[in-house]
Amino acid sequence: MIERVSFLAGTDGPWRIERITAISGETLPAAAAFRSVEGAEFAPAAGASWALCGVRSYDRYVTRAEKTQLVAAQEGLGRPSSTRAALIPIRKTPAWWALAQDERRAIFEERSQHVVAGLRFLPAIARRLYHCRELGGPFDFLTWFEFAPADEHAFDELVDLLRRTEEWSFVEREVDVRLSR
Amino acid sequence: MIERVSFLAGTDGPWRIERITAISGETLPAAAAFRSVEGAEFAPAAGASWALCGVRSYDRYVTRAEKTQLVAAQEGLGRPSSTRAALIPIRKTPAWWALAQDERRAIFEERSQHVVAGLRFLPAIARRLYHCRELGGPFDFLTWFEFAPADEHAFDELVDLLRRTEEWSFVEREVDVRLSR
Repeated sequence: MIERVSFLAGTDGPWRIERITAISGETLPAAAAFRSVEGAEFAPAAGASWALCGVRSYDRYVTRAEKTQLVAAQEGLGRPSSTRAALIPIRKTPAWWALAQDERRAIFEERSQHVVAGLRFLPAIARRLYHCRELGGPFDFLTWFEFAPADEHAFDELVDLLRRTEEWSFVEREVDVRLSR
Repeated sequence: MIERVSFLAGTDGPWRIERITAISGETLPAAAAFRSVEGAEFAPAAGASWALCGVRSYDRYVTRAEKTQLVAAQEGLGRPSSTRAALIPIRKTPAWWALAQDERRAIFEERSQHVVAGLRFLPAIARRLYHCRELGGPFDFLTWFEFAPADEHAFDELVDLLRRTEEWSFVEREVDVRLSR
């Protein structure tokens, strides 16, 4: 069974939207509150200022060795100490999607060290990736991050690191939504 | 823009359904006629006996070297001589989806020679793969094949070859829909 997520920005929800920053391309509308709903179906978006949907899916680039390291080091979502979160929706360029698998993998890890960067910040920065390219919405991925207030600087360091990589030269739209509860 | 396909079985359409064979798992209902509709939106399924939807997406396993060979050898859909077609919807097991990328690639090509097999039958057997796992339907992939009547034996050989591979040990549902026009 497919696991779906709906991210809903509007007037109610457990998260307060602290700021929305367009990193590349168009931003998302301002809103006060935010909630994410995981389940078998997408949540109704009626009344939301904006809604983004995604699905949990399988690993596209990670090797078994990398996955073993990630699973050993990471912690789950929902830690009581994680009172800060970020939602980063991303769309990559047509040039990225026209690459073959070996070319995308080489850019993703061998040249941009995407997994290595994420590992450096585990377990402080918990994350979950949702796919949405096949759903036809405005983004290809929605990544959700959770961390403690003291780790917000580490999170900024992680996203700064990734944004300077070759992989990010293929990102044509990116919005950074910061949340607290 | 995402390119969507709807495969509709029912009482009208340019293709006649010759037979529907369940290779693994549950079959699909019998129907007389069939049409496929590609476009920006899914086609309305009202009145159809059954409908399957998918999207064109990027290559998950093929390397640049393999892609170059495939592109050089293949011909497009819609050849006037292609009066036979097959739709093969497939669902893979949870064990397959839990594998890491390098493990799936090794099974797919190094041990099952999926690309090598397809290349052997080009340009006779034209194909197009649609993804539907993220859409949450009953299948993960829908593959559409077109060929001339004289090449139906070659097509049977291709699918027999694939069904004997290690990759196919991860296929838990497969239906083989044969069509003519």
